[in-house]
Amino acid sequence: METMTLSVDAVPDQDRKGPGRPRSARVDEAIVEAVFELLSSGQSADAISIEAVAAKAGVGKATIYRRWPNKEALLIDAVLAMKGPLPEPRGESVREDLVTQVAAMRNKRMAQYGKVTACLMPELFKSGEMTRVYQGVVEPRREVMRGILRRGIASGELRADLDVELCLLVLSGPTLAQNMLRWNPNVPDENFAENLVDFVLQGASA
Amino acid sequence: METMTLSVDAVPDQDRKGPGRPRSARVDEAIVEAVFELLSSGQSADAISIEAVAAKAGVGKATIYRRWPNKEALLIDAVLAMKGPLPEPRGESVREDLVTQVAAMRNKRMAQYGKVTACLMPELFKSGEMTRVYQGVVEPRREVMRGILRRGIASGELRADLDVELCLLVLSGPTLAQNMLRWNPNVPDENFAENLVDFVLQGASA
Repeated sequence: METMTLSVDAVPDQDRKGPGRPRSARVDEAIVEAVFELLSSGQSADAISIEAVAAKAGVGKATIYRRWPNKEALLIDAVLAMKGPLPEPRGESVREDLVTQVAAMRNKRMAQYGKVTACLMPELFKSGEMTRVYQGVVEPRREVMRGILRRGIASGELRADLDVELCLLVLSGPTLAQNMLRWNPNVPDENFAENLVDFVLQGASA
Repeated sequence: METMTLSVDAVPDQDRKGPGRPRSARVDEAIVEAVFELLSSGQSADAISIEAVAAKAGVGKATIYRRWPNKEALLIDAVLAMKGPLPEPRGESVREDLVTQVAAMRNKRMAQYGKVTACLMPELFKSGEMTRVYQGVVEPRREVMRGILRRGIASGELRADLDVELCLLVLSGPTLAQNMLRWNPNVPDENFAENLVDFVLQGASA
């Protein structure tokens, strides 16, 4: 993977100095949006160059170098922006908190999000570095879910012998599969989060 | 997608005429294996040409054209060969039959299988035709699982109000996610099928 070692200090970032920083925020957004658009047009992470991002965002390469130390950091920010903010669990009921988290994995940019994830897949296989990037994005989200499950065990809402890691996978795997490809086209999108969480809580046995 | 309209009847397939057809079977296998190797080396389905398959398999292009009407049919056979034979449910217990099916999704060529699936993902997104190919492979397997679940409802082993389609997704989604990418690296590979099925049957609630 291409690395960019230009220090942030090497070039003063004048865009960031103004009060309220409206121009800087717009520039940041345009750059992240450009990465997102390149990925969702089917470009692999490996194939994306800083030149292409700069051209698409309408900025110079130096503007990107001033903001992100390397392509990996830029990709992390683009994937994070794609995923949107992580909702804070309210801590009132495990069911409600799980529904909120699963629903957040299925946001309004789902069609693009699934495509980006699908287009990142071969890259994640080829590059250990990209896998690390992705796990860096996924792990904090998994940790929030882990906290909800642990609280549920402590409160008695969940089984005392619950396999927390397997439960995380059973909540995220079906969501990933539907996001990327509507893996089972017979499962409706409507109320997906509620239906999945209720199913996982209740189980299939009579 | 490239289409090959040469009819199977247009060129007599002399390889298929001998008793026991040992040479023909070996040729079929070599061709399917070549497709599999090209896919698992990171080549996209779109990029794979009949020329490249022929060269890798050590056969002429006409030998491939005699056996498969088009690339789509060849890809279906390659994905089917990768997945291996679908085990017949024994019909004694729902749990045992589900474990057998989930275990069959995680076969001995898992590392390659996951990579091939991951490398097909962008293609599945780009091409409606490839999506149809893949659903053509997946749907018969889903139908076997559907049969097991319906029998479980009838026998009283499963809840009468079970959402069969959602249950299929909850069994296949986590399996897909682990196959492709060990999505949650904290879930062990050992006894994966047993652990997943037991979890799905029992549910997470106290």
